Amino acid sequence: MSTLPVCQTLLLELHNGVLHITLNRPDSRNAMSLQMVGELRAVLTAVHEDRTVRALVIGGAGGHFCAGGDIKDMAHAHVQGPTACRELNRAFGTLLQAVQHAPQVVITVLQGAVLGGGLGLACVSDVALADHQAQFGLPETSLGLLPAQIAPFVVQRIGLTQARRLALTAARFDGTQAKRIGLVHFVEHDAQALAERLEEVLAHVLCCAPEANARTKQLLLASAGQPADALLDEAAGWFSDAVTGAEGVEGTQAFVQKRKPGWAL
Amino acid sequence: MSTLPVCQTLLLELHNGVLHITLNRPDSRNAMSLQMVGELRAVLTAVHEDRTVRALVIGGAGGHFCAGGDIKDMAHAHVQGPTACRELNRAFGTLLQAVQHAPQVVITVLQGAVLGGGLGLACVSDVALADHQAQFGLPETSLGLLPAQIAPFVVQRIGLTQARRLALTAARFDGTQAKRIGLVHFVEHDAQALAERLEEVLAHVLCCAPEANARTKQLLLASAGQPADALLDEAAGWFSDAVTGAEGVEGTQAFVQKRKPGWAL
Amino acid sequence: MSTLPVCQTLLLELHNGVLHITLNRPDSRNAMSLQMVGELRAVLTAVHEDRTVRALVIGGAGGHFCAGGDIKDMAHAHVQGPTACRELNRAFGTLLQAVQHAPQVVITVLQGAVLGGGLGLACVSDVALADHQAQFGLPETSLGLLPAQIAPFVVQRIGLTQARRLALTAARFDGTQAKRIGLVHFVEHDAQALAERLEEVLAHVLCCAPEANARTKQLLLASAGQPADALLDEAAGWFSDAVTGAEGVEGTQAFVQKRKPGWAL
Repeated sequence: MSTLPVCQTLLLELHNGVLHITLNRPDSRNAMSLQMVGELRAVLTAVHEDRTVRALVIGGAGGHFCAGGDIKDMAHAHVQGPTACRELNRAFGTLLQAVQHAPQVVITVLQGAVLGGGLGLACVSDVALADHQAQFGLPETSLGLLPAQIAPFVVQRIGLTQARRLALTAARFDGTQAKRIGLVHFVEHDAQALAERLEEVLAHVLCCAPEANARTKQLLLASAGQPADALLDEAAGWFSDAVTGAEGVEGTQAFVQKRKPGWAL
Repeated sequence: MSTLPVCQTLLLELHNGVLHITLNRPDSRNAMSLQMVGELRAVLTAVHEDRTVRALVIGGAGGHFCAGGDIKDMAHAHVQGPTACRELNRAFGTLLQAVQHAPQVVITVLQGAVLGGGLGLACVSDVALADHQAQFGLPETSLGLLPAQIAPFVVQRIGLTQARRLALTAARFDGTQAKRIGLVHFVEHDAQALAERLEEVLAHVLCCAPEANARTKQLLLASAGQPADALLDEAAGWFSDAVTGAEGVEGTQAFVQKRKPGWAL
Repeated sequence: MSTLPVCQTLLLELHNGVLHITLNRPDSRNAMSLQMVGELRAVLTAVHEDRTVRALVIGGAGGHFCAGGDIKDMAHAHVQGPTACRELNRAFGTLLQAVQHAPQVVITVLQGAVLGGGLGLACVSDVALADHQAQFGLPETSLGLLPAQIAPFVVQRIGLTQARRLALTAARFDGTQAKRIGLVHFVEHDAQALAERLEEVLAHVLCCAPEANARTKQLLLASAGQPADALLDEAAGWFSDAVTGAEGVEGTQAFVQKRKPGWAL
């Protein structure tokens, strides 16, 4: 039986072989702070060898899943310099790799904001359930930034054809469209229907043998090929260039000042 | 003109440049025995260089396509030990590779059970036609086993996103859903409509030049990348571990005894 | 500010950061001549470093996008011999690679014929808009030829499963089906609706920072893996074999003589 770490940004509840993880920073729509990244990784490590934990269900508190990276962390890294920017970015990619390779079945329950890093997290789940009104999007380039650690997982999730349109237009889309492009498996019309669908999926997961499922997941990931460390490392460098470059500075300032950036004609 | 092998588990009918192959073990819903694997490979070899055979149509006798691997073969291999288990499993992957690379256009007609290895066979066809009530699924992990030779071809067929949900929940789905996730190209509502669709597809195939089609198929497969021998070899070892391990023993016993296995909460 | 080359087969119009490129050989449904290939490459090179050019919109004059390769060029190469055939073919692949890697957002507007090489060009655009009555198809093997430079990009665009059916049956399909299989992003019912959709997409693109978008596109393409030069080179050799072989000679003669080729049963 695993000992779970004490967390400040996550609510944890282990019940009937299922660990429910709730991203719990509702004041910032559960923005993914560096602390949250660290706590999620610690939870994954704690249960990694434990086959009595059969599924991980990740959702968000306060009606949102996750609105993306934390602005305060980014500002702080910006002051510290390029190395800090790169490391902040790469840490999120390492988290996505860890969730992708968790031996448990990972289920995401997607409501409200599913943006940037939140969308990335959805892309590494084995089963994704979405509310029809959830708001998905990759807003990075509209802020002069890059979806650097996220793009490789989005391409793997929905293919290059859909990924290129979404990333290069910063388009928003809802749960119904997320199902149509294959990002999520189920779309439901209210919280009650989402809860029932989750029960149904969990019942199926619990009929499957834990070790067989873990090994099969490993086989599926090996069959698909995975975003390589080298690409994620390079992308973190590009992210750092963008944050500290002219577009990133203008884009984040414009965002804070609630005005259009200079390139928006 | 090819000489076709004499087969006990297959019905063969060559007509107008099209070889119709019927899996013919209706008492076991055309379960894929080692003998059937061998006979299918012999048929593919016999016509490999013959460009007057333009298409292979694979279907099943008695209202089913194929319910998966043969339980008797598996029990026999289990008694013989890990090497026999591994070789039994790997032989099926070799068949899938051979069907995938057949220079003819391969068409599958999917009715009734399309499970495990049957689903794998559908995944290596160039055009797949399904009855709307056909029952698809990857039940392996619910039996404590792995879809070891099948998973790589499923990932290639429908992508990682759909494959991970199906394999890790052992979910059943029908022909309509199989079309929605891109496993099959056409879904029809009765045998008559299936037969008409098959005629239409064959008419198109026969308008294409045989050598040009064979070369184009080779080019498409090279463009996509193919499940590697090394991965299929390793997966056969994992299959052997699963069959002879605690979960596999419990799962297959529970199946025979018509009870839930121990892990099904 | 870029200096655009003088073109005979293209109309160019630069407006508000968007370069509109119109394939302009309406008498041959904008068939892709060697001259057009050269002019398109020259345009791409001219704007490659220019971040004030934010998007490239490619359409066709006279109600068609592009009906494929130019028959006259092919006949000419045939007379010159295998090397000329190979080089003619490979030049088109080089163009597709250049469009794929253009740092601008590439948008295709697809009406009328979108066949062979025209379909290939659609496959390397970031956003594709289609008229619902546009006619898509890969007719090559029905002429005894190969979609040699095109197939790798089609597989990348829509996956192996859809590509193999389309290429091996030479099937025609319309804009609605093109959206269903993921080849295009939007399908519209008339020219007015197409124009409005284009405006909407461009408005989104112009909200994204130019350098961030260029870098993100590079990252997406790196994540997806790209058709390799070695495969495209080999495919050009196969194309040359097909053009000068029995099937290619019969197929193109039958096409000119408006009769069925010998293999069409």
